[in-house]
Amino acid sequence: MAYTRMTAADAAALIKNGDTLGMSGFTPAGSAKAVTRELAAIATAEHEAGREFKVNIFTGASTGESTDGVLTEAHAIKYRAPYTTNPSFRKSVNKGEISYNDIHLSQMAQELRYGFYGDIDWAILEVCDIEEGADTCKAYLTSAGGISPTVARMAKHVILELNTFHSKDAKFMHDVYEPLDPPMRQPIPIINVGDRIGKPYVEIDAKKIVGVVECNLPDEARAFKDSDPITDQIGHNVAEFLVNDMKRGIIPSTFLPLQSGVGSTANAILGALGKHKEVPDFNVYTEVMQDSVVEMMLEGRVKDASSCSLTVSNECLKQVYDNMNYLKDHITLRPSEISNSPEVIRRLGVIAINTAIEVDIYGNANSTHISGTKMMNGIGGSGDFERNAYISIFTCPSTAKGGLISSIVPMVSHQDHSEHDVNVIVTEQGVADLRGKSPIERAHLIIENCAHPDYRPILRAYLEHAQMGQTRHNLGKAFAMHIALAEKGDMHLTEM
Amino acid sequence: MAYTRMTAADAAALIKNGDTLGMSGFTPAGSAKAVTRELAAIATAEHEAGREFKVNIFTGASTGESTDGVLTEAHAIKYRAPYTTNPSFRKSVNKGEISYNDIHLSQMAQELRYGFYGDIDWAILEVCDIEEGADTCKAYLTSAGGISPTVARMAKHVILELNTFHSKDAKFMHDVYEPLDPPMRQPIPIINVGDRIGKPYVEIDAKKIVGVVECNLPDEARAFKDSDPITDQIGHNVAEFLVNDMKRGIIPSTFLPLQSGVGSTANAILGALGKHKEVPDFNVYTEVMQDSVVEMMLEGRVKDASSCSLTVSNECLKQVYDNMNYLKDHITLRPSEISNSPEVIRRLGVIAINTAIEVDIYGNANSTHISGTKMMNGIGGSGDFERNAYISIFTCPSTAKGGLISSIVPMVSHQDHSEHDVNVIVTEQGVADLRGKSPIERAHLIIENCAHPDYRPILRAYLEHAQMGQTRHNLGKAFAMHIALAEKGDMHLTEM
Repeated sequence: MAYTRMTAADAAALIKNGDTLGMSGFTPAGSAKAVTRELAAIATAEHEAGREFKVNIFTGASTGESTDGVLTEAHAIKYRAPYTTNPSFRKSVNKGEISYNDIHLSQMAQELRYGFYGDIDWAILEVCDIEEGADTCKAYLTSAGGISPTVARMAKHVILELNTFHSKDAKFMHDVYEPLDPPMRQPIPIINVGDRIGKPYVEIDAKKIVGVVECNLPDEARAFKDSDPITDQIGHNVAEFLVNDMKRGIIPSTFLPLQSGVGSTANAILGALGKHKEVPDFNVYTEVMQDSVVEMMLEGRVKDASSCSLTVSNECLKQVYDNMNYLKDHITLRPSEISNSPEVIRRLGVIAINTAIEVDIYGNANSTHISGTKMMNGIGGSGDFERNAYISIFTCPSTAKGGLISSIVPMVSHQDHSEHDVNVIVTEQGVADLRGKSPIERAHLIIENCAHPDYRPILRAYLEHAQMGQTRHNLGKAFAMHIALAEKGDMHLTEM
Repeated sequence: MAYTRMTAADAAALIKNGDTLGMSGFTPAGSAKAVTRELAAIATAEHEAGREFKVNIFTGASTGESTDGVLTEAHAIKYRAPYTTNPSFRKSVNKGEISYNDIHLSQMAQELRYGFYGDIDWAILEVCDIEEGADTCKAYLTSAGGISPTVARMAKHVILELNTFHSKDAKFMHDVYEPLDPPMRQPIPIINVGDRIGKPYVEIDAKKIVGVVECNLPDEARAFKDSDPITDQIGHNVAEFLVNDMKRGIIPSTFLPLQSGVGSTANAILGALGKHKEVPDFNVYTEVMQDSVVEMMLEGRVKDASSCSLTVSNECLKQVYDNMNYLKDHITLRPSEISNSPEVIRRLGVIAINTAIEVDIYGNANSTHISGTKMMNGIGGSGDFERNAYISIFTCPSTAKGGLISSIVPMVSHQDHSEHDVNVIVTEQGVADLRGKSPIERAHLIIENCAHPDYRPILRAYLEHAQMGQTRHNLGKAFAMHIALAEKGDMHLTEM
């Protein structure tokens, strides 16, 4: 049988004010993008007619302009979880216009299943192919796993966006596995990065499929700034640190799988590792694969990669599809609760490297909030990976805004990762290896090895006047650097 | 063959200044206690003779007076990890005299194996029985799993304290399993609370066994304050919350395994659940079993319990040994990396309930530091359990010190658990169910439901004058309540 074809506008018209949508995708990769654009138009028209129109959105991670962007601009999002990167969304959230729940990405699907968030009215999934069975639909995902299997199973109704921009060969990358819930859950049997434990498709009750929207829309992955001397130096410092740990026997000589965050620093780190003659060919177990990983796979430098998404440029995506005969045996895309599973990350011994907005002298990290209040993006998978890593590394440039901001502060203004979860801090200045250290030992290492020389006297002064204890602080001055920035525009002007 | 018997004093005399000791035990339960007392005497004599004498200590969690207590008083500890509860140790740490590394308990054994901490010179294990093989010793542990299998395997030399205070039947409770390290690690095959996956003994290379110290010394478990009306009300609030979640279908009707922290609040919570007619008989998957769990097992109210330690009164311990014929099928003691394994906790769907020192209006929790500086005990297993729980609950009385301190503050002065890891806050005032909520929604819930009425106006005023953003804060006032306490002795006197 063939399922009903409909336009994106007709599909969007079925969605009501107050409905809850579960979306495919993880980052802009694999996000549905046809129906939501029409939904934004409907919302705008409804608002112009004086009627309320807002929906709730659950997805794997960020989406692209066609979901978070247009729906935010149409004031059509009431509630959203988890992670996002959209600038319009960020502005609205920080004005208090959207209820935004920023949770660990590994937990999104299971918390939906546990019933923490109520019903899902609509699942909207981007697919590259469909087997239109009378009872069961086999839906083949595109460039991300996300929370698709869970929302497809839980939703009352399903809309499929059959996007011919993607090659049907995308199906060869997917391993769709949804665990049972406690008390029935079983071990997730991944022992090697490339192990496949599920099916290549999402199984959907055919009765729930309201329609298929055919479209041809490119993925909306972000462009990243090229690396610069600062990120290159951070990459170099990370690579040297890991090589040294390998020489000392802490990292096995076969190396361990890497997770590296998103952005230009992540690219610089992977680049430095790739070029390092003493680093053997390695595997990647991560949530987001960028262009650099694909390039290194095609060179054979990266052997196997497991990810939730292929967040790559459209040129790179074409290259993946063109090389599918090789890559299908080496790229595995998984749902986010598997790509980010604490169980699997700890078992495989993943080395996690993520970027922080700021870190404090005791090794606590802020991944999300500027000056404690303004949301940047969200925690993403950094907590899933860093807490469970073999070695957990946070990187940041030692300063921001041309030196007006020190990324090393006495106390983070918002904390996403505690001292218990951070092994190593790396800036372009150097490396602080915090493993096994007490707080005061960590403070000295971070100030002397990682802080910018301009800011070391201020940080030393803080420590000198801090109250004695396991963790020395002066609560009256803990945010003096942030307050100097807010009042005088420059952390150099801190009176400590 | 029979291994060499020696006195505790002779064994202690083998240990040199600067040596690293790996100890059995988890809490005072199962800790070695004969050799360390003699070691403290040696240290004191050495110091009197003008010589340096300090050792480094690794253990499962806290030990008792006979290790942390006497060695601290003898100024004989240079470095220690992880968790401790000893008052003398706490004082020394907060004076900066001991280097104390407070890590997640699930990570202690693996980080030793990974090589983060160098060599272990001595393993000192309390055992209830030994099979003295020529090549391999089978050592049977007493009342805790701890990190014994790891330190016994890694240490250069092993001393066994054969403590006849414990029944040899203690061996029937143990399931000793040590995972391989990445890239060889396999799934931990625990699917039910009571599953046994290892051996009942620790296997030790007989060549490393320097001697056996025979002794008869009682366990040194702490006495807890009885519950009071405040802890009883917290227990009642938790029980009602969980029953309601069960009625709504969020918790399965068969219930889920419980982890409940240590102390009188934990006892009150277990008591309230035990007495609640709508709570079915349940299982416990925890790190520390107290008397109350044993009582409930003997009544049949708790079916199976998995724990790292039996931290019970000596009367209760006798009761366990007297009832071993029944309890051997229902109590399983595991090494701490298994009792606290993120993999197993998430798979089983453990409901985690731990006590915080303070929580803030956004749901961040402080488990360790008084006013941001003074270490109380340590994070223990709270991070292992709360991050991976099916539902993560933190409890605290709404006030401390007769009302002079509010446990609900604008920003925690030290953060061990982030907003991403806390589902529910419970005080005697009520319950704040934070699941799915944005920060501002959480703030209103916590202030109105959990804070003491005396402090609500202060907290509301903070929020009112805070800077807009995803998380509203005023960094100049974030610690105003803590500073009022320090300067005026009473948080009521906060000028907000």
